[in-house]
Amino acid sequence: MTTMKIMGIDTATLVCSVAVVSAEKTLAEYTQQVKKTHSERLLPLIDTLLRDIGLQPQDLSGIAVAGGPGSFTGLRIGMVTAKALGQALAIPLCSVSTLAALAAQHPLFPGVICPILDARREQVYNALFAAGTPMTRLTADRALPVAELVAELKKQTKPVLFVGDAVPVYRPLLSEVLAERACFMPPESAICRAASVARLGLAQFRAGEGQSWRDLRPSYIRRSEAEVNYQQAQSKGGGSCAGLD
Amino acid sequence: MTTMKIMGIDTATLVCSVAVVSAEKTLAEYTQQVKKTHSERLLPLIDTLLRDIGLQPQDLSGIAVAGGPGSFTGLRIGMVTAKALGQALAIPLCSVSTLAALAAQHPLFPGVICPILDARREQVYNALFAAGTPMTRLTADRALPVAELVAELKKQTKPVLFVGDAVPVYRPLLSEVLAERACFMPPESAICRAASVARLGLAQFRAGEGQSWRDLRPSYIRRSEAEVNYQQAQSKGGGSCAGLD
Repeated sequence: MTTMKIMGIDTATLVCSVAVVSAEKTLAEYTQQVKKTHSERLLPLIDTLLRDIGLQPQDLSGIAVAGGPGSFTGLRIGMVTAKALGQALAIPLCSVSTLAALAAQHPLFPGVICPILDARREQVYNALFAAGTPMTRLTADRALPVAELVAELKKQTKPVLFVGDAVPVYRPLLSEVLAERACFMPPESAICRAASVARLGLAQFRAGEGQSWRDLRPSYIRRSEAEVNYQQAQSKGGGSCAGLD
Repeated sequence: MTTMKIMGIDTATLVCSVAVVSAEKTLAEYTQQVKKTHSERLLPLIDTLLRDIGLQPQDLSGIAVAGGPGSFTGLRIGMVTAKALGQALAIPLCSVSTLAALAAQHPLFPGVICPILDARREQVYNALFAAGTPMTRLTADRALPVAELVAELKKQTKPVLFVGDAVPVYRPLLSEVLAERACFMPPESAICRAASVARLGLAQFRAGEGQSWRDLRPSYIRRSEAEVNYQQAQSKGGGSCAGLD
């Protein structure tokens, strides 16, 4: 039996990350975090990675993509790339919560894991998890005002590990409110990693939860600015906003 | 002031990993784990990574290399590559313990961290660390028979996190002897990562501990088979073994 090889793709934030994993190991992982659009970067990155480890696209058994929450454009690029490859290769796909993939990197943290992604307008995409393999999810993925999240976390007594791209922004506030209960990791262990997406995807594929490219959907959690503006314009009897896609 | 950009190189085991980090983030990290010699892989990997993030080699402020313990050939390839780049670019270098770089990925583990690398002949390269930022080193890097390491760990009562390439080999034994005190991470968080090497290197450079390419030395811990054989042959009055380099 050939080993299942799963590609993971994460373009939900400024990080662009691609990996190929098997049940036993990570064959390769390439993560970049520079200002360059995912649409330019992602396909060359996949091409380089597969070439370097001597695989053909058709050697992949499935593709797992970070399906949100995250940047709308980033998610769409990851999603459409996974769908195109899934269609061309006729292999199953699955969408993994960006927040779950961030949390799953820390299965031994003795407390609550709270990935936070910048959702703009003083909000963060977040969810709470209890460590473990598999993790226990304590809340759904959601967008919350930071003040509301902090108030919720103040009510309990466990240490809280914050990871994700909103950490540099809110670290001073979180440290002030939660004091020594607020925990942080070095930068390289606090960002999205495609190996984690692929590892969670592998579990989904094994559980028979693979999807066709036709059915795969991102999970935006919140409506985009364009949608909000459009609907506001509509309800005012306006309606010339065409920013919706 | 330009931000310090440090390249990390890790070729101490079968993993080949290169990263560039700053104080704030990981600009890029590329890790491969396939059967292909490091000498073929390392330079193209460095070239790809720098190009992809739009850096020239001369943008680097320093290079940190996993200096051992590990495979003799792997260490020599990492070391000589770092030295050549350091000489050409006239930038400081530093050598980071492979075991410390493995342990530093888990600063919040509530117990003792024990990286183990396969040293053949029923031995493992290992060291003990207490989690934290910075970590506390509890022992020197050493090569020990597995039975001896296990006996030492049985004496204390804390949970022990095992990471490194010897984990798949000894996991059943460790789980049997230490029961629920033996902890493990998913494969992608249990292998050498160049971002961790670069992060520890950054701290060394800041502490003024950079070295010239002339002074950088690997830390083999144990003598190579070739040396042992050579010395045995010499002491027998033989001495035709030329395997020493």
